[in-house]
Amino acid sequence: GTLGGLGLALGLWRRQAALAAAREDEEEKELRQRFMAPPVSGLRELRRRRRELRSRMELLIMETQAEMCRALADLDPGASFAVDSWERKEGGGGISCVLQDGEVFEKAGVNVSVVSGLLSEEAARQMRSRGKSLKAKDGKLPFCAMGVSSVIHPKNPHVPTMHFNYRYFEIEEADGTKQWWFGGGTDLTPTYLNEEDAVHFHKTLKEACDKHDLKLYPKYKKWCDDYFYIKHRGERRGIGGIFFDDVDSPSKEEVFQFVKSCAKAVVPCYIPIVKKHCHDSFTPEEKLWQQLRRGRYVEFNLVYDRGTKFGLLTPGSRIESILMSLPLTARWEYMHNPPESSKEAEILEVLRNPKDWVH
Amino acid sequence: GTLGGLGLALGLWRRQAALAAAREDEEEKELRQRFMAPPVSGLRELRRRRRELRSRMELLIMETQAEMCRALADLDPGASFAVDSWERKEGGGGISCVLQDGEVFEKAGVNVSVVSGLLSEEAARQMRSRGKSLKAKDGKLPFCAMGVSSVIHPKNPHVPTMHFNYRYFEIEEADGTKQWWFGGGTDLTPTYLNEEDAVHFHKTLKEACDKHDLKLYPKYKKWCDDYFYIKHRGERRGIGGIFFDDVDSPSKEEVFQFVKSCAKAVVPCYIPIVKKHCHDSFTPEEKLWQQLRRGRYVEFNLVYDRGTKFGLLTPGSRIESILMSLPLTARWEYMHNPPESSKEAEILEVLRNPKDWVH
Repeated sequence: GTLGGLGLALGLWRRQAALAAAREDEEEKELRQRFMAPPVSGLRELRRRRRELRSRMELLIMETQAEMCRALADLDPGASFAVDSWERKEGGGGISCVLQDGEVFEKAGVNVSVVSGLLSEEAARQMRSRGKSLKAKDGKLPFCAMGVSSVIHPKNPHVPTMHFNYRYFEIEEADGTKQWWFGGGTDLTPTYLNEEDAVHFHKTLKEACDKHDLKLYPKYKKWCDDYFYIKHRGERRGIGGIFFDDVDSPSKEEVFQFVKSCAKAVVPCYIPIVKKHCHDSFTPEEKLWQQLRRGRYVEFNLVYDRGTKFGLLTPGSRIESILMSLPLTARWEYMHNPPESSKEAEILEVLRNPKDWVH
Repeated sequence: GTLGGLGLALGLWRRQAALAAAREDEEEKELRQRFMAPPVSGLRELRRRRRELRSRMELLIMETQAEMCRALADLDPGASFAVDSWERKEGGGGISCVLQDGEVFEKAGVNVSVVSGLLSEEAARQMRSRGKSLKAKDGKLPFCAMGVSSVIHPKNPHVPTMHFNYRYFEIEEADGTKQWWFGGGTDLTPTYLNEEDAVHFHKTLKEACDKHDLKLYPKYKKWCDDYFYIKHRGERRGIGGIFFDDVDSPSKEEVFQFVKSCAKAVVPCYIPIVKKHCHDSFTPEEKLWQQLRRGRYVEFNLVYDRGTKFGLLTPGSRIESILMSLPLTARWEYMHNPPESSKEAEILEVLRNPKDWVH
């Protein structure tokens, strides 16, 4: 009868609802296992707007963070990542994962942030100076910025420092138009030059770029050499990699796919180099040279790095996550000049005159 | 006869010339003993224009350098100052005195520079942003800047870091008018708070100021607290002292006399504190806290310090002398927070909320 049919329909609906709930629980569980912490925007919200680019980007940066942290933790089993989820009262938050004073890593930080709110005057000025028009409504510019950012400082001077950052930016102008762009890059800072490592690193990046457009690697390789320039020293911070910013063509989807390839290349770029050298023996003199190079790293990050400056200027930004990029220890000696033809002079030569590592 | 009279006059003139030459030699010898190296402008030139303020200021900064270096060397007899005279191809030069890795001092630098030439675009922009009109002729602004600048980083965490800088600036505008001003200050950065030392330091500075105008100490003490502010940390760099800039009244002579009193106070401000604590015992934990504070010192100098920024922007400036202010070693730990009521928390409290040490 009708009543029996209704009962059947109700039972079916209940079962489906229960199944859907169970599926959601499963997804939640799976995502929790996949990520270092629950995403800033919440899983439910990310599922709701799963087709939007900002949701897909947030999942990508969460995945990248987890992949990197797992790969690093595998190499330094005695140490463990401190995982801090933090909120920004002006909007958004982040997840900072930091491993400090391990066996292999002096300091390794992998940070995700997803912040939104109104752009500060100073930040808007900086962006305008980069050629963005940014028509504000009553001086207000709603923005949304997200990214994954990481700096790995190993203990052994034969293992290079590595940095990567992939980010997405949206700004809403007065007339409602949305400006968006991607930025990012991956670069290597060795204490001593190892040509094989340099080639492996650049080759892996080139392959990621070449899948999308053969013009990208040469362009972004040069941009990287230009960007990481310590002007007052006449040196680059390291042996480069790729760097790009303000990229908003050919299309949102295509740039996202390119950024995804770059993010997926982070682990294969770097982890083999760590594995290869983390048990190399080294002298106290080599450790000293590493400490001096750490000093130059600090100089670049505090004096020139746009990301650091933007962070320090953004009200309510989390200073500990921004300055996580600084090494555990650094050194400045007055008038330190390595002897000619030394291994120290060899890397300096490459930092002064960047080389092409792959063709 | 007439000829005999002429002979007598000639003899007299010769004797006077010989005496004058001997006096010059003596002066030269004396000045060489008094100073760490021959002054940038040359003794003859300084003698020729001895009444001009820039000459008197150059002698004052040379004397201050020598006094400080001698006082420091007396406390660290095993170590010695490297003395480097350098030239700037765009005009002028300097003398850098650096003692590194001594028994008492980790790094002590006392630098004199006397530079002249044309102001860079960027430097002129910075000065205009401070309210200077600076009408340039064909975009060119001839300037002359001189100063003595010093940062002393001791090894023992119970001996504070000290910084001072006294400088004089002249700029010639398009219509030939000369703008001039003095700037400077002396400030203390302890790792741990010692109230007695803080009072001694500030009292000595207050006495130097009070000889000229009772309003100066309170005004410049506050300026110092405001200037050495690490905005992103919400902390001052240290427990302050005095700081002033752009001072061009009541008169050149009066400001010079005030600056002279401040420069003469540098040794009595600081050296007694070093003597008192340089043999204090300390723990590895205290050394660690010192290293973390050194990190904050680096943050202030590279991110905020106007002198450092001006130096890095000035073409042909001597980077090693500018960055001599950085400590030999520094440390950054993620999320380091000293426990409540600890000695580390005590100094942090004062760095967050500056105190009045003398009334």
